[in-house]
Amino acid sequence: MAISRHALTSATAPGTSIELECLYHSPQGKWAYAYNSTTFHLRLRSKKNNVKRVFALTGDKYDWEHHHQELEMLKVGSDAYFDYWEAEVTPERKRFSYGFRLETDAETVWMVESGFYRKEQPTPPGGYYEMPYIHEVDLLHVPEWAKSAVFYQIMPDRFANGDPANDPEGTLEWGATPASDSFFGGDLKGIIDHLDYLLELGVTALYLTPIFQAPSNHKYDTVDYGTIDSSFGDLELLKQLVSLAHSKGLKVVLDAVFNHTSAEFLPFKDVIEQGADSKYANWFHIYDYPVKAEGDNPNYDTFGFFAGMPKLNTANPETKEYLLDITRFWLSEVQIDGWRLDVANEVDHAFWREFRQAVKEINPEAFIIGEVWSDSLSWLQGDQFDSVMNYPFSDRLLEFFRGEEMEPAAFASHIYGLLMRYPRQANEVLFNLLASHDTPRVLTRLGGDTRRLKLTVTFLLTFTGTPCIFYGDEIGLTGEDDPDCRKCMIWEEDRQDRELFSFYQRMIALRKEHEVLRTGHFRFLQSDGDSRGLVYERFDDNSRFTVWMNNSSEPLTLQQSFTGGSWQDAFSGEPVEMDGDGISITLEPLGFRILRSVAEAADDGAKPEN
Amino acid sequence: MAISRHALTSATAPGTSIELECLYHSPQGKWAYAYNSTTFHLRLRSKKNNVKRVFALTGDKYDWEHHHQELEMLKVGSDAYFDYWEAEVTPERKRFSYGFRLETDAETVWMVESGFYRKEQPTPPGGYYEMPYIHEVDLLHVPEWAKSAVFYQIMPDRFANGDPANDPEGTLEWGATPASDSFFGGDLKGIIDHLDYLLELGVTALYLTPIFQAPSNHKYDTVDYGTIDSSFGDLELLKQLVSLAHSKGLKVVLDAVFNHTSAEFLPFKDVIEQGADSKYANWFHIYDYPVKAEGDNPNYDTFGFFAGMPKLNTANPETKEYLLDITRFWLSEVQIDGWRLDVANEVDHAFWREFRQAVKEINPEAFIIGEVWSDSLSWLQGDQFDSVMNYPFSDRLLEFFRGEEMEPAAFASHIYGLLMRYPRQANEVLFNLLASHDTPRVLTRLGGDTRRLKLTVTFLLTFTGTPCIFYGDEIGLTGEDDPDCRKCMIWEEDRQDRELFSFYQRMIALRKEHEVLRTGHFRFLQSDGDSRGLVYERFDDNSRFTVWMNNSSEPLTLQQSFTGGSWQDAFSGEPVEMDGDGISITLEPLGFRILRSVAEAADDGAKPEN
Repeated sequence: MAISRHALTSATAPGTSIELECLYHSPQGKWAYAYNSTTFHLRLRSKKNNVKRVFALTGDKYDWEHHHQELEMLKVGSDAYFDYWEAEVTPERKRFSYGFRLETDAETVWMVESGFYRKEQPTPPGGYYEMPYIHEVDLLHVPEWAKSAVFYQIMPDRFANGDPANDPEGTLEWGATPASDSFFGGDLKGIIDHLDYLLELGVTALYLTPIFQAPSNHKYDTVDYGTIDSSFGDLELLKQLVSLAHSKGLKVVLDAVFNHTSAEFLPFKDVIEQGADSKYANWFHIYDYPVKAEGDNPNYDTFGFFAGMPKLNTANPETKEYLLDITRFWLSEVQIDGWRLDVANEVDHAFWREFRQAVKEINPEAFIIGEVWSDSLSWLQGDQFDSVMNYPFSDRLLEFFRGEEMEPAAFASHIYGLLMRYPRQANEVLFNLLASHDTPRVLTRLGGDTRRLKLTVTFLLTFTGTPCIFYGDEIGLTGEDDPDCRKCMIWEEDRQDRELFSFYQRMIALRKEHEVLRTGHFRFLQSDGDSRGLVYERFDDNSRFTVWMNNSSEPLTLQQSFTGGSWQDAFSGEPVEMDGDGISITLEPLGFRILRSVAEAADDGAKPEN
Repeated sequence: MAISRHALTSATAPGTSIELECLYHSPQGKWAYAYNSTTFHLRLRSKKNNVKRVFALTGDKYDWEHHHQELEMLKVGSDAYFDYWEAEVTPERKRFSYGFRLETDAETVWMVESGFYRKEQPTPPGGYYEMPYIHEVDLLHVPEWAKSAVFYQIMPDRFANGDPANDPEGTLEWGATPASDSFFGGDLKGIIDHLDYLLELGVTALYLTPIFQAPSNHKYDTVDYGTIDSSFGDLELLKQLVSLAHSKGLKVVLDAVFNHTSAEFLPFKDVIEQGADSKYANWFHIYDYPVKAEGDNPNYDTFGFFAGMPKLNTANPETKEYLLDITRFWLSEVQIDGWRLDVANEVDHAFWREFRQAVKEINPEAFIIGEVWSDSLSWLQGDQFDSVMNYPFSDRLLEFFRGEEMEPAAFASHIYGLLMRYPRQANEVLFNLLASHDTPRVLTRLGGDTRRLKLTVTFLLTFTGTPCIFYGDEIGLTGEDDPDCRKCMIWEEDRQDRELFSFYQRMIALRKEHEVLRTGHFRFLQSDGDSRGLVYERFDDNSRFTVWMNNSSEPLTLQQSFTGGSWQDAFSGEPVEMDGDGISITLEPLGFRILRSVAEAADDGAKPEN
């Protein structure tokens, strides 16, 4: 089976004038980047339906005549305003200059760095864009395993209490309603005890919120970065957990809180006591002395306005070395598989560059995930993170699947827009979550309707990126914002939604079985009809899946024509009958189907082979 | 005198609908950057004449209610397609989130990271852009002295022969027509002998093309980075030159050719001899063995397709350490003031980051200038270069001043476009040249007309950025492309254009005398009339200059209204009479005037005070 990467159909009206002010390309960032050591990606945006064809004109600037080629760009997506075009360039000598030729039926425009040209192609290479040389060392390399991982996020205090002996004072009864300062006694032993549960679910990697010594239940206020909080366990127990996890094929990622500490962090206490004379005075950002560590207007920089969370000065050499030592220690001593970085965008880029070097020197395949809620491109250029927590993704998914307010066309626009935010290799490991300790529970955000949850989870697990499940979502845990979203895990099976659990199991298994669901290309086939129906596909050179969704409370019949292949239900394996040149499927209210192409499937436009 | 920073007048037609697809902002790069440790710049572009007012809505994301402000953005320039808007933000706690409100008389649009809104302002801070924290260490800091420098570029072989004893074999007679392989015997002693000439001219910094041991006359094919080419002098002589230059107030910048070497570079010779067993095998990018160092299709990466210029593997730790040692050696041993980096865009970013650290550790005020002919934003983010050679600037200037083909309006568009390419602090030290060893001579590109040259030089020396004069341009040297542009300097005064020299002297002196000509704001006052006339101004809180130019071969009278101040000729000091509310000036063909505001000048819109 050979499916080439097909572009979206263009809807340009003949004779439309190309709107130059809407075109955008920049010879850097997500618009022009090396995907690997031989392949470079170019992207361009044009006003939606305004341009019919785009070509990348590439050549070697030192000898254009003998080394040039013209590549038709593919329209890989459209959001509400723009069409996005993409080309893969594999230059002979790791370098090329380039420009673009844009066409409608009536018009041709050349776009190069020095401007727009209408009469004729400007003579290359002067004034063209440049990709000077693909350097391996500047590439964004992401861990291969992360592309196939399914993560599970655990708050240790709330997941399972394996050792009541280490419960902190005032520990509440398991399952009681949490307040913001409640403790429930969950610990590392609890996680170890339930590794088989996680294997049964099918996840392949754990992300633990902080486990180092800290006064709070969430432990985002570190007191000692070198010690496991005694209510969770100790170094030996963590080693046991990681080693057991590894033996079962599970990776373990820890949470690094390097933006700020607890006010109880010894260096900060020293500054409070010694003032400007403290040898730790430069570890923080202090305006004047004495330090007033109280109230909501502290005289030093903090996380938010919390006097109890002083911000670290990560540019100070001693502070930096201390934190990098901590980073190295847990990687080499316990062999953890990566770090999730708390409030990562408020720490300096220079620090993260050294951090990445320190991490990758010990384990080149360690996974680095930043907590950044807004545009994260600055951190995904190869020198800092591999991935970021993709909150904009969860917001768009939940806005769409929670009801009928958002049209499928708008949803598709948002999804394409998100795919165009970052380089492709970042998209492939973007940390796609539906909920976390910092948001309401996904089932709650979806009005408690498990059918809606299943649609959402289906999208998550059939989409590009590294999915993460927040502990308990798989058995129907609900909850509003913190502290309600941080309720204790339910372990009594009769109180779990086992049907939902099985659903998660099946979806995870399907994703793990088929590479195309992880790294294949993504394309909406149907999103702009009158109905609430949605059809999209994942495809690569070897296989093809289509996902059919009904985001309405009425039954819905969707039709989609296919020019090749024969299809079966991805779960049951039952063949799906072709209806002329296509397939017609009737979905239950809020129902979905996943089909898999099983025989030779020709490219769009070719004839069916059966 | 108090002149606030005034915006361009808006030409928006009432009721124009805001074209969302033409708006652009990105929360990074040149669109959102820290100018210094307390000030952040935001930029936005809109379709030309499509938006009337733009406001930046900023606030602290952790407590928007108590910490927010609204800033009107200034329209700081327009090119052929866009208006550019800018705001300076000084947040309370070094961080802010933000969005934009755009208005016409009929319409309001809010633009935040999550999209556009028409009905009402989206509730902050969710979905707003973020500037997480201004980190001193991530800032682009440029050397203060470079903002005031006037550079002079010297090719040592062609500037002056101070010591005939070290002339290479086959040295031609001074002043003979150069071929690409000619030698003329110029040397460091020649430069030392003519330092007073340079002081008389008024320049304040020298950029020497490469002086390290190399077979060619241009020495861009280094054989030994640690040794001065014997035909130029030796270490002691360079020390003498630098120390003498420093004593006279001149800085000295050397040329680092780290992208490639000569094929005679010992490590490369070793690889040719030893093949894959050479301990230098990883110093280059070699495809297979044996190395075939001949022909135009070498089996290793090169500069261009030149087999004689093998490309260095700057990611290889030993190569990197060798080059960084070289970098440190000349900085600390000879105390040079910076490096110009040859073919800088083809070397990896990771190398340049370490290079910057090495350089700034020894001399935080050393100046780093990359040779990059195309968009250079990737190198001007704070972690790599201070400046780049601004060839796009020279191209635009020469296109305009060489004839009457380009309209003043188009020229103004290009200039504003160039100012919007980089952060302001980069603009302030951008290496603005009119010609170099890699282009034809400026006088030749201007058809040999010294009046056109004077207009061009006047623009150069009254514009933002660090100007550089190519040796000999100031006395009327001409020449087509290499080797013709690399003719010997003329030292016989009767063969020099002394009148041109005096003109350069006066213009340099004027720039040095008035800070506003170096770092003041720049604005065109007249560029879109029917004539070839141009009026622009430089201004800051304390002073104001206007420059009047006639880029035509006919006399031209230009009128410009001013609401305050009184004016005098910047050179003669003669008062310029106000004509009602303005000034009327008649310029000779290809003539110009520079006026200086001498009394209290009110802001636009205020009344004159005299």
